[in-house]
Amino acid sequence: MAVTESAPPATAPPVTVWHDRLSARMRGMKSSAIRELLKLTTRAEVISFAGGLPAPDFFPWQEIEAATDRILETRGKEALQYSTTEGFLPLRELLVRHMARYGIEVQAGNVLITSGSQQALDLVGKLLINPGDRVVVEDPSYLGALQAFTAYQPEFLTVPVDEGGIDTERLEVALRSGPKFVYVLPNFQNPSGVTLSLERRRRVIELASHYGVPIVEDDPYGQLRYEGSHLPPLVVLDAEFHGTGNHVHAYRGDLIYLGTLSKTLAPGLRIGWVVAPEEVVDKLVQLKQGADLHTATFTQMVAWETARGGFLDRHVRRLREVYRERRAAMLDALERHFPPGVQWTRPQGGLFLWVTMPPPLDSARMLPRALEAGVAYVPGHSFHALGGGEGSMRMNFSYCPPEVIEEGVRRLGGVIAREMAACAT
Amino acid sequence: MAVTESAPPATAPPVTVWHDRLSARMRGMKSSAIRELLKLTTRAEVISFAGGLPAPDFFPWQEIEAATDRILETRGKEALQYSTTEGFLPLRELLVRHMARYGIEVQAGNVLITSGSQQALDLVGKLLINPGDRVVVEDPSYLGALQAFTAYQPEFLTVPVDEGGIDTERLEVALRSGPKFVYVLPNFQNPSGVTLSLERRRRVIELASHYGVPIVEDDPYGQLRYEGSHLPPLVVLDAEFHGTGNHVHAYRGDLIYLGTLSKTLAPGLRIGWVVAPEEVVDKLVQLKQGADLHTATFTQMVAWETARGGFLDRHVRRLREVYRERRAAMLDALERHFPPGVQWTRPQGGLFLWVTMPPPLDSARMLPRALEAGVAYVPGHSFHALGGGEGSMRMNFSYCPPEVIEEGVRRLGGVIAREMAACAT
Repeated sequence: MAVTESAPPATAPPVTVWHDRLSARMRGMKSSAIRELLKLTTRAEVISFAGGLPAPDFFPWQEIEAATDRILETRGKEALQYSTTEGFLPLRELLVRHMARYGIEVQAGNVLITSGSQQALDLVGKLLINPGDRVVVEDPSYLGALQAFTAYQPEFLTVPVDEGGIDTERLEVALRSGPKFVYVLPNFQNPSGVTLSLERRRRVIELASHYGVPIVEDDPYGQLRYEGSHLPPLVVLDAEFHGTGNHVHAYRGDLIYLGTLSKTLAPGLRIGWVVAPEEVVDKLVQLKQGADLHTATFTQMVAWETARGGFLDRHVRRLREVYRERRAAMLDALERHFPPGVQWTRPQGGLFLWVTMPPPLDSARMLPRALEAGVAYVPGHSFHALGGGEGSMRMNFSYCPPEVIEEGVRRLGGVIAREMAACAT
Repeated sequence: MAVTESAPPATAPPVTVWHDRLSARMRGMKSSAIRELLKLTTRAEVISFAGGLPAPDFFPWQEIEAATDRILETRGKEALQYSTTEGFLPLRELLVRHMARYGIEVQAGNVLITSGSQQALDLVGKLLINPGDRVVVEDPSYLGALQAFTAYQPEFLTVPVDEGGIDTERLEVALRSGPKFVYVLPNFQNPSGVTLSLERRRRVIELASHYGVPIVEDDPYGQLRYEGSHLPPLVVLDAEFHGTGNHVHAYRGDLIYLGTLSKTLAPGLRIGWVVAPEEVVDKLVQLKQGADLHTATFTQMVAWETARGGFLDRHVRRLREVYRERRAAMLDALERHFPPGVQWTRPQGGLFLWVTMPPPLDSARMLPRALEAGVAYVPGHSFHALGGGEGSMRMNFSYCPPEVIEEGVRRLGGVIAREMAACAT
């Protein structure tokens, strides 16, 4: 065979069959429905109720620009350098003061800054879960938490939620089986929008203490309440229960609390935090060091400089007005446009409500037709760790302005009505 | 017993013995020597050769401020919002063009943005390591990689490095035992400062291919070469070996390559990246989604806006001049101030050199006396996965200006001389 000068060199094919080399934990992982959907919904003609996105028109970009300029001009060498894993101390202290206004009395030593509260969920899973350990989650629960924990191969135990939050009788049954921890979102739960009642909050703390099972409390929306009275987070009740509920002492209890600036300042900064007993913070710091060394110094300092001096509280008050109006717009539109037989929750805060269609409607199978009609949501099935929720869907009301919400609900109501008519024939 | 109205309510003690609840992986974790040291060395009077910190005087804070203002004014809603897990596409495309100037021909679909390359190490461990899997590392190796991998409970196999990099004969022995992957830093290795020779690079690729073991190539310093000629990264040789080394095709080989902007732009932004076959990127995206959803949109867009238009290349050229001078200052000071019998590497680039003292000197035991004398380093022991390195230390030359390097080496030389004298008596 003739070989020319320009012939390529003999080469070997790749030998790595990558999927044979993956760790066992990858077998339980699947791509998230939210993520795939977010891709579809970037099409301009689709009205998206799918993401959990804050309203971009209300990002305080001018305040963030001014804060960034001040930080770079006065502390630029620090803001661009490596920093400690625990996080920027003035930001941790600011968060301590901020939480105190919601009744949470802890010290900076109880606070670890994370790269969004998603990272906190990952670190909690890494800290606590051995393969096969039982973990109690609400049914439905936050998809990102299920995904974070799944990497550590737990066995999920699910406990249903109703309008008053997690069912405490069913919770007790689950606690008897010796789970590693209980993961719960007491305020305006993602995805259902329901809030854990005060009576049940006390019961959850009693039960967890009785069975010696720690709680992981996820509270991304606690400050975004649009009606009703603030209820004490579980971490406050836990501190009271254990007699450590005063600000002279650091928090030392049976609970890990997660907060975030993603819903109150801006998600693009990726600033979350963990509150935990100092011994737990120390362990989480070790894990975070291996995971990403530290959260970006730059965004931590910018967030601090933006938030301080009362701005964060003022901005949260403004967001409450904006989202209260959008929630009302969605509830109003649902009344007018959704067919009889469809039900939904009436959240007192947060970003989401939960719609349940009558059988045999299936929200996942309906989604392509909704996208054709120019509207998106997340099928309820995604939020159930052990299956279920086929008739449900999560709808976000924070992202779209009221008039867009009206139009999107109108489109979706038409899709559901046609689906119901098709089933009836 | 009299009970007054103001008596505290009966309380229960905390019931969670947290350390009994930790996952098995926590048993192998220990707090990092680097981290504890970084705390000590923030004292103003200590000259620190301990951290791996870039020179803060050369952070391009004015360019970053201007870039931030442009981003917030033109794309603020996007910069502050949630974004895709893969990373900001224009940044991934910029990195593709940047890498091409160093011979690495890949496509944006091969690139995943990570929260510093530390996160890439964590994701690689999560992707590949089952408890008990063998992982080959250099001896010594990067402490942060050992820490990231340890969370997934591997069995480390160590292969020594000399002035030409990893010992390929010993590597072959290790490869015969069926490891999951080989982790290697070919350029100006952290901590030793040595560079893998071209001949050995080819041999590493041949061996890895022959034994069907993938390589994880960590290249944080490849652009920071101060003498000698650029050598092709392993990812380039791997692509050539497998006949995929042209930019018409996406990379599909047996290697995962890690890069970072921490040493060339600013570590406080936490921007790293992974290059891998698309099927591997897809899996890493799933893991990253669970780990932190995505790297901060804000820092990704600011890094892109700062770096583009040739600024990153110009800035790297400037850093080379700065660090070349500092490396020369340290090598010069070592010659003058260190006692006979002490040896050190002469790195062609990067941030570190490696000092070896004669027995029975112990760098960890000497450290308190060095800190008393006002100088810090990292004891060599920290970098050995399976022990050893007691006589060695890692010294950083990028952080301190030349005159400070001179003074710090003088102090350290005195400490070592006294230590040797004490051992001789």
